[in-house]
Amino acid sequence: MLTLQACRARDAADPLRPLRDLFALPDGVIYLDGNSLGPLPRATAARVARTVEHEWGEGLIRSWNTAGWYEMPRRIGDRIAGWIGAGPGETVATDTTSINLYKVLSAALAIATEDQPGRRVVLSERSNFPTDLYIAQALCAERGCELRLVDAPQEIPQALQGGDVAVLMLTHVNYRTGAMHDMAALTGLAHRHGVLAVWDLAHSAGAVPVDLQGADADFAVGCGYKYLNGGPGAPAFAWVHPRHADRFWQPLAGWWSHAAPFEFTPEYQPAPGIARYLCGTQPVLSLVALDCGLDALDAARPLGGMDALRAKSLALTDLFIALVEERCAGQALVLVTPREHAQRGSQVCLSRPEGAYAIVQALIARGVIGDFRAPDILRFGFTPLYLGFEDVWNAVEQLRQVLESGEWQRPEFNRQQAVT
Amino acid sequence: MLTLQACRARDAADPLRPLRDLFALPDGVIYLDGNSLGPLPRATAARVARTVEHEWGEGLIRSWNTAGWYEMPRRIGDRIAGWIGAGPGETVATDTTSINLYKVLSAALAIATEDQPGRRVVLSERSNFPTDLYIAQALCAERGCELRLVDAPQEIPQALQGGDVAVLMLTHVNYRTGAMHDMAALTGLAHRHGVLAVWDLAHSAGAVPVDLQGADADFAVGCGYKYLNGGPGAPAFAWVHPRHADRFWQPLAGWWSHAAPFEFTPEYQPAPGIARYLCGTQPVLSLVALDCGLDALDAARPLGGMDALRAKSLALTDLFIALVEERCAGQALVLVTPREHAQRGSQVCLSRPEGAYAIVQALIARGVIGDFRAPDILRFGFTPLYLGFEDVWNAVEQLRQVLESGEWQRPEFNRQQAVT
Repeated sequence: MLTLQACRARDAADPLRPLRDLFALPDGVIYLDGNSLGPLPRATAARVARTVEHEWGEGLIRSWNTAGWYEMPRRIGDRIAGWIGAGPGETVATDTTSINLYKVLSAALAIATEDQPGRRVVLSERSNFPTDLYIAQALCAERGCELRLVDAPQEIPQALQGGDVAVLMLTHVNYRTGAMHDMAALTGLAHRHGVLAVWDLAHSAGAVPVDLQGADADFAVGCGYKYLNGGPGAPAFAWVHPRHADRFWQPLAGWWSHAAPFEFTPEYQPAPGIARYLCGTQPVLSLVALDCGLDALDAARPLGGMDALRAKSLALTDLFIALVEERCAGQALVLVTPREHAQRGSQVCLSRPEGAYAIVQALIARGVIGDFRAPDILRFGFTPLYLGFEDVWNAVEQLRQVLESGEWQRPEFNRQQAVT
Repeated sequence: MLTLQACRARDAADPLRPLRDLFALPDGVIYLDGNSLGPLPRATAARVARTVEHEWGEGLIRSWNTAGWYEMPRRIGDRIAGWIGAGPGETVATDTTSINLYKVLSAALAIATEDQPGRRVVLSERSNFPTDLYIAQALCAERGCELRLVDAPQEIPQALQGGDVAVLMLTHVNYRTGAMHDMAALTGLAHRHGVLAVWDLAHSAGAVPVDLQGADADFAVGCGYKYLNGGPGAPAFAWVHPRHADRFWQPLAGWWSHAAPFEFTPEYQPAPGIARYLCGTQPVLSLVALDCGLDALDAARPLGGMDALRAKSLALTDLFIALVEERCAGQALVLVTPREHAQRGSQVCLSRPEGAYAIVQALIARGVIGDFRAPDILRFGFTPLYLGFEDVWNAVEQLRQVLESGEWQRPEFNRQQAVT
């Protein structure tokens, strides 16, 4: 049944198909990189223009009140909450993922080490996204703590037992492999060992089912510019379980986190709840674009919401895997992403001992935009909001042609660029 | 000579007058709040639209390379450098002022306390902008240091002599009073006492002459959305003297500060130079608007640059002071901003024992947009890029009418809003 015709039939029967029209996808492009930068929702351009020309241009400083700018980090946080299993008032859209991780990891370490002074270890995976490790290294250096890394997820249960672990810091879906952790199981295990759980949802929010409250997680951060389609460098988000919200401050104690920022008092008094995870004035134009990205995601709600998105995402990645194995057999591609649905995010990664970078470049030249991730990974993201089954067929067909023709060996596909 | 006719004559003779046309100022508004949020440059809307529709919509992830997004924090930093007396490669546009202060104060404390371990004090003014004090309080708590505040600028020389001061942290132009420090003198004094100098240029960059290299300052931060006209919540900037650039890292050690971010190595290796003051992915739409704000400022270069801007700024604030004293005499307004040019920023602040908030609201209702700053300050910013002498005349005339009519006592002008 793996025919182009069958793929077209599945698109015709897909209840999520109309959502594709919400996005401005260029002609001739199959976009398998929405896990790096989500595409432009059609409505975003007009909304950003209105913010620039009307709210800023006409409203000027008054728009902090009249256009709701001041409330945006909390209002948009509450919108994200609906996609990550959080309640109202628990999430804030602000700053970058790296900075938000510094805030929540800082609070987690403070709580953990106050409750159990002997614990000084942050446990994570060596394969975690590097910025998470860098931030944790830096904070551990500040606090006299230790970042301890395991080489494989299976080592986590053993590593939690040492009695010196304060915080388990994991990324829910691995950026290189697409492998997904069982958040509820690992959080439960961490708690049974007296360890707090901090989750990075960069590749999860809007992509896979996330239930922070259901998993009883402690803290989370995530990204606005991937599956939330908030635009390049969109503000990130931070979530704090209500049981921790009022307990500790974080050291990025800027005026937006103050209980009464416009009283301009010299003494810091943290705001109650999630607002204390704010810091300085936020980039309004970029927040507005993130708001539009959430509009596009929310359009999936009446069509089945995350259940429907997840079912289609798995169908797309299943199809991609099956087509690659059938049509690119003998091309030395190795599936890196787990086959088990429960362990798979919304991307498929292939490794190849030779030419991974160049093959991705050759595909991009043919309009199939994926990602290379060092040292040998071809990474393909599948976003059910705007991708169809025929897209998957066509992407694999281009991959097959690139491999069989050997065109990826051309010099122009082997020049490394600064950013990929 | 303080006549409307004389003001019009000065506008007619003003070589900077054509710059006003670069800004989209609403009809009927005299905007004296560019020190809180600069107005919209006319060119910004089209440039942001191009970034949204073409660079993001068509270019997608490729635009990190092809549209120069990745270089923007450093490229825009270098543009700002030209207005603050910094050399190339010393400034970066990123994050918020609060977060950048955390970075540079962190580095300053690390350097100062390594070189002179007995020094644990950050010295500042109680009247500094609160977020600076909050960030310093938080960082001092992390580091076991002390934030010590003086009540008046005259106390700074004495306070520097204690032998325990590590860092002097000042805002160049005070946000409430408009009083300007002598950066070179205070930095020199600090250095003679073995103290590093960190300057906040929020109300200085683009507004008054700043020469960080000439003053031999150590670190600086500043704001993108005031006199740089970068739009609401525009990214801020950080500057580091080259002698410190490679010496210490800062704890917000995200991947953008890594020597090779796209090698995705688990170990943190800070980039050489100013790039290590970056952290996470930056809000591109807001950076692009900041770039446009700098275009508008740079348009003053062939017309005399900062010398011409400063001369006109002082002429505008001199005129405002003189007109208020002449035409609003007996109205209990007290000049807070220094009369001495060398001690004045680009704003004039008046205090009034009663009604300051309501008077500002009544002025706003008449189209004269200034700011209230608690507890009793009427704050008026004068930006020579787009304000003229007739504007000053008209603003004072409206103030006179508001005061003489008593209309500020109406209930609608006395309801406090969340943000002002």
